Amino acid sequence: MLTPTLKQALEEKEIEALLVTHRENIAYLCGFYGSLGVLLLWENPVLFVDGRYYTQAKEEAKNCEVVWAKNLFWNTVCEQIKNRGLKRLGFEESHLSYHLYRILRDRLRGIRLIPLSDVVERERMIKQAWEIERIEQAQRLSEEALSHCLAFLKEGISEKDLAVELEFYIKKKGGDLAFESIIAFGERSALPHAKCTTRKLKKGDIVLFDIGARVEGYCSDMTRVFFFGKPQEDLIEIYYAVLNAQQKVIDAIRAEMKGSEADEIARSELREKGFADLFTHSLGHGVGREVHELPALAPYVEEKLPPNCVVTVEPGVYIEGIGGVRIEDMVLVMEDGSKDLTKFTKELTIL
Amino acid sequence: MLTPTLKQALEEKEIEALLVTHRENIAYLCGFYGSLGVLLLWENPVLFVDGRYYTQAKEEAKNCEVVWAKNLFWNTVCEQIKNRGLKRLGFEESHLSYHLYRILRDRLRGIRLIPLSDVVERERMIKQAWEIERIEQAQRLSEEALSHCLAFLKEGISEKDLAVELEFYIKKKGGDLAFESIIAFGERSALPHAKCTTRKLKKGDIVLFDIGARVEGYCSDMTRVFFFGKPQEDLIEIYYAVLNAQQKVIDAIRAEMKGSEADEIARSELREKGFADLFTHSLGHGVGREVHELPALAPYVEEKLPPNCVVTVEPGVYIEGIGGVRIEDMVLVMEDGSKDLTKFTKELTIL
Repeated sequence: MLTPTLKQALEEKEIEALLVTHRENIAYLCGFYGSLGVLLLWENPVLFVDGRYYTQAKEEAKNCEVVWAKNLFWNTVCEQIKNRGLKRLGFEESHLSYHLYRILRDRLRGIRLIPLSDVVERERMIKQAWEIERIEQAQRLSEEALSHCLAFLKEGISEKDLAVELEFYIKKKGGDLAFESIIAFGERSALPHAKCTTRKLKKGDIVLFDIGARVEGYCSDMTRVFFFGKPQEDLIEIYYAVLNAQQKVIDAIRAEMKGSEADEIARSELREKGFADLFTHSLGHGVGREVHELPALAPYVEEKLPPNCVVTVEPGVYIEGIGGVRIEDMVLVMEDGSKDLTKFTKELTIL
Repeated sequence: MLTPTLKQALEEKEIEALLVTHRENIAYLCGFYGSLGVLLLWENPVLFVDGRYYTQAKEEAKNCEVVWAKNLFWNTVCEQIKNRGLKRLGFEESHLSYHLYRILRDRLRGIRLIPLSDVVERERMIKQAWEIERIEQAQRLSEEALSHCLAFLKEGISEKDLAVELEFYIKKKGGDLAFESIIAFGERSALPHAKCTTRKLKKGDIVLFDIGARVEGYCSDMTRVFFFGKPQEDLIEIYYAVLNAQQKVIDAIRAEMKGSEADEIARSELREKGFADLFTHSLGHGVGREVHELPALAPYVEEKLPPNCVVTVEPGVYIEGIGGVRIEDMVLVMEDGSKDLTKFTKELTIL
């Protein structure tokens, strides 16, 4: 649990223990997943849960003591922390409300509280083989679900209807959604974060699916667009420009490349075609226990990609009122290149 | 938006404006619902959103200025707040991370930041007619879904399979889940917050459904148990004891009663039957935009119920290793009594 890199990260800040409150970080570190739980990460890790979760935590949590924090949960957690004689305690500042911070501050007088960001998240960037396997399972499931949904593409079906079919398929197979599906028809595909509506499919529409499944705690993320009937000429041109930009990134990406460098490969390709201003978001993001996690592939990101991170590569071009094309694969970034974890075809498909 | 009671709540704390960051509170106050948005609540309310939500916010948000916070979202929000010359600014301390608090503190020097809890939540307790109507719609939908699911109760079906059918039904009808369904067979019904598993239904099992739908932003919540085959004698006894305790509360509950008084009606009934120690949770909670909201019906709650709040009444008795019975209705609390918003039968049903 307290790996050498985590230990080093804490030592650099002269911190003896980190109070982990982000549930994905807790699940990553000790295996327990629940709506309430706090992990005290140090040499002798302790997981605090309430009565609802005690039995489950005893089964799931590995390599740590499990304590049932009875009575008022946070008061008990604070007492237990005090009993352990710590002097400098880090906490996850993006995953603790100001209200809970005040409770800690008031009840842990004498202990220095140090706000930290992304300590465990940095460790989570680097995927182990079993994690990559789960991400691939989640990806296979969402590809199956997408194939299943294509059969429903008939005039008159709505975005929402299709989203329900997709979700039902994934859940029947024992998975979960990684995020609320984005299914957008026609001009609505120009909104990068469109919510599904009752908009009905009609001839000539572009159809965009941005979907992901979650299997055993790990997410997948992919985007495909299809043409329902003969597409406008300019959308075909855009399709190939986006596909080409994406492929250039997948061919070139590798560990030690900066996030901004990967982004620039796609952006410069699209700039050459005159589409630079229509690529209105960043290129990609890490995927793992969360569908958006570190690292970021975006302008100004100076940080280098670590080996064995999994990222999305998803350039897009959007024309308001007409439609948009985004093509997204997940790739495993390695020292000497990348492996595309997405198998679904990217051939231009007219249905 | 700034109702007389809200205005008074702020004036009592000598606060000029409240920074609302809880998305349900934002939706309640101005109608906008999204994953990122901040509402500055004062005489001239302002809603800040980012580019993804600007078009949607312009359509949805009523009675407030909508500002697209470009560049770094929170920096822009802080600048805009400073421009408005405020001196004392409240914030929702349970709905702001310590990280964001630090940003506010650093960028709003000269403005006093005051942590507040439940200001808008207290306003939300008191339901208007149109809100009650939506809660009832959500309740009707979950009742339909439950009826639909009873047809699937055959030997060999799993809790998870049933939960997927229920969710699919609700979503096909345009609703959403209010919370992850609790469907528990046999001995698992003794866990008040059981997650659905692959446990299969067999003859003699008790079957517990704790389910809710969400329609146009409003939730419902109900629990029913059924007997799949002839039940054990003691479970029948428990069933009637729980039902009787619940009915006593529904008959007696009214505005101005304390939360603890309502709880005690059920608890004393069950105590008389010797089940006091097996009723291991509190009696109920408010329902509205959130499935758990104010007020609480629980021991030690001195606060009185306001007229036109909607609460659950859900006593339960649990025997580890055997099974549990919980029966839950939602009721509208009025000055002269209550109205049961749940229509689904509570007759002991053997399937």
